Amino acid sequence: MVERRSPIKVGEAVRRVMEWKQLGEIEYVDIDACDRRFLGKPLVADHDVPPFDRSPYDGFAVRSEDTADATSDSPVFLEVIDEIGAGQVSPFRVGKMEAIRIMTGAAIPEGADCVVMLELVHEEKKDGKTFIAIKRPFQKHDNISFKGEDAKKGQPLIEEGIQINPGVKALLATFGYAKVPVVKPPVVGVLATGSELLNVDEELVPGKIRNSNLYMIASQIERAGGKVKTYGQCADDVDSVLNAVKTAYKECDIVITTGGVSVGDFDYLPEIYRQMKAEVLFNKIAMRPGSVTTAAVLNGKMLFGLSGNPSACYVGFELYVRPLIRYWLHSSKPYLRQGKAFLQSEFPKANPFSRFVRSRVFYGEDGKLHVKPVGLDKSNVVTSLAWSDCLMVLPGGTRGFGSGDLVDVLFLEDNTGSESWWEESKRSSK
Amino acid sequence: MVERRSPIKVGEAVRRVMEWKQLGEIEYVDIDACDRRFLGKPLVADHDVPPFDRSPYDGFAVRSEDTADATSDSPVFLEVIDEIGAGQVSPFRVGKMEAIRIMTGAAIPEGADCVVMLELVHEEKKDGKTFIAIKRPFQKHDNISFKGEDAKKGQPLIEEGIQINPGVKALLATFGYAKVPVVKPPVVGVLATGSELLNVDEELVPGKIRNSNLYMIASQIERAGGKVKTYGQCADDVDSVLNAVKTAYKECDIVITTGGVSVGDFDYLPEIYRQMKAEVLFNKIAMRPGSVTTAAVLNGKMLFGLSGNPSACYVGFELYVRPLIRYWLHSSKPYLRQGKAFLQSEFPKANPFSRFVRSRVFYGEDGKLHVKPVGLDKSNVVTSLAWSDCLMVLPGGTRGFGSGDLVDVLFLEDNTGSESWWEESKRSSK
Repeated sequence: MVERRSPIKVGEAVRRVMEWKQLGEIEYVDIDACDRRFLGKPLVADHDVPPFDRSPYDGFAVRSEDTADATSDSPVFLEVIDEIGAGQVSPFRVGKMEAIRIMTGAAIPEGADCVVMLELVHEEKKDGKTFIAIKRPFQKHDNISFKGEDAKKGQPLIEEGIQINPGVKALLATFGYAKVPVVKPPVVGVLATGSELLNVDEELVPGKIRNSNLYMIASQIERAGGKVKTYGQCADDVDSVLNAVKTAYKECDIVITTGGVSVGDFDYLPEIYRQMKAEVLFNKIAMRPGSVTTAAVLNGKMLFGLSGNPSACYVGFELYVRPLIRYWLHSSKPYLRQGKAFLQSEFPKANPFSRFVRSRVFYGEDGKLHVKPVGLDKSNVVTSLAWSDCLMVLPGGTRGFGSGDLVDVLFLEDNTGSESWWEESKRSSK
Repeated sequence: MVERRSPIKVGEAVRRVMEWKQLGEIEYVDIDACDRRFLGKPLVADHDVPPFDRSPYDGFAVRSEDTADATSDSPVFLEVIDEIGAGQVSPFRVGKMEAIRIMTGAAIPEGADCVVMLELVHEEKKDGKTFIAIKRPFQKHDNISFKGEDAKKGQPLIEEGIQINPGVKALLATFGYAKVPVVKPPVVGVLATGSELLNVDEELVPGKIRNSNLYMIASQIERAGGKVKTYGQCADDVDSVLNAVKTAYKECDIVITTGGVSVGDFDYLPEIYRQMKAEVLFNKIAMRPGSVTTAAVLNGKMLFGLSGNPSACYVGFELYVRPLIRYWLHSSKPYLRQGKAFLQSEFPKANPFSRFVRSRVFYGEDGKLHVKPVGLDKSNVVTSLAWSDCLMVLPGGTRGFGSGDLVDVLFLEDNTGSESWWEESKRSSK
């Protein structure tokens, strides 16, 4: 029997999935192991940065008033009374016509109100004392990095859910996070189904292809920030798939299967969800590729049935599973980052379904963003996935799209994200 | 004594570093461990994809000529003589007025030249036989994914030096790469110097700050694709730094120190390079931040002396060390990816040095790229690094820059890269 399915809109499908979003727990990891993890708590400055007034240059700390009459013909001579290296604090106060030699990063000594760079002075020895000749006036506060100018104590610097990159890590070190609060990633189980699937190390035989979805999805899960648990591949057999899905359900936070979701006799995911008493959230979406993407929920835990076609599987993951993972990781921007780009291609035929075309963006010399599809635009294609860095969105409707049209793009390799899903943000921007 | 240094142009500094570029060796890793590694050999299709003509849908394989007269009022009835699941090959040939039930991904049987989707037919049983009613004509080749339409045997698909992402991994699986040739990353040694540096777990004391550069650079090395080896932090003391640098030189492919590169008394990197008999390639660059960035070479191995100031250190790494690492990883685009964006800020003062301003890009609703600086634009600032996703380039010269100006940006979180360095590509585009 052919099951009748009514397609829902992509935005509605996203909304139904995100009703089941959950926040992950916090764990602490060594700062050396925090790269690319997601910050579990906001990072607030617990002290001023810099923590004291300091010199950004090698030079001399002086009183600006002493330099007021300096000219190149008639330099002012100041006596050097101390020398402070980085990390040191001078016990002396800079008095009238005095200077203290200061290194980059060292604290400005008492009495001084500006720094004269080393390159701008001439040193002279006289009667066992050292003097510097200054040839122009300096202003109060010249060449001083002030306490708190970079960050003030109590200032929120980084929100939770941000992926830790080199700059964030530098801040963590600055504020003494030897242990960093990060979010425990969701464990995402993956099972590929299909009697046509060979293992990656098997020779091709007629009618069969190697399983690529399992590896692809594992890589997508890791890119999204999840932890992968693979359950291998299953032939198209309800009992063995059911057993594997039940095991994955017990051991994982999210379960993904690929294949078995179409409307044919051998597409048994609906049957499995029935047997598990999972509530099916949708099984048909007005999108291409991936219209047969299925989502179900059981006791608050999500089960995704992605298409067995590589491109459809890929897109289904990015649109529906990724935001759930990013939200789990405390991100306030769990959706793919959006942009607008000028289409450099023709899609003359209208399509009632919204299309997500594997594409690449180009940054033009004119400051504009351009986008081109890569490879064949078919759901069962695999090569174009390797070349794409974005999905071009061609909304379903009555018209085609042509060269020069401004279209939406969703960035795949970006970690910034968007606060709202593409369709919602279109509504709110109108 | 103040050393006199003549600044060289950024492009010249990049050129001098890249004269010492080296290609890394290949190693094989399990496909499960290849994520984010760099492909060591080009990926060439070793078979057609798909490997056989197949059905993209669940449906029936038929002969188009048999459907020529089909209408909804007068459907054509074809006898279903076999059923093939995915991975199966039918032993039968589709003859006149016959059909074979076919699942998504299964091989098109002999005799058939098109596929009718399951949803479009009506099945009927009669005398123990199954028939389908077809209500409109189909054309030869309708709904067939042809052998080789995605990729032809022998077609080069991915060049070496590409970072493996989910799409590339899917291709690797498709072509049976159970073991994947990747490039052994360069081992990059890092040592932070400066008597002002506290460990990340130490309490602040007057005059001192916590070491953030070591953690930041380690994270930058990993993002670039290198392998980090840290040598901790050293006080400003020639002998102890010399020993640490010598050890790192023996154990690593590239050595980075931070701090000790300015022109002051305690800036001893020049002395260390002299003692090691390393050839200094430059010690002053016409850029901000990072003008004191130093590079030296000894027996073909690079030693970098980056600034102790976080922003200067960060920029120095991205401009000079990153391309060396990416080239090592066989990338043909080792430089930061470039774009043009509209400035949303004012930099009224001209600067003789080229400025690399920590910034963020925004994708406008108008299809244009916009860029804004983040935080304070000073070399010793650390907070802005956490917020930036690009460096805005303001070339040195006689004019300032204002809102709406089209400026260059270098993307920090992108993995595409550029073939040529920013200044070279400006020349070639003129």
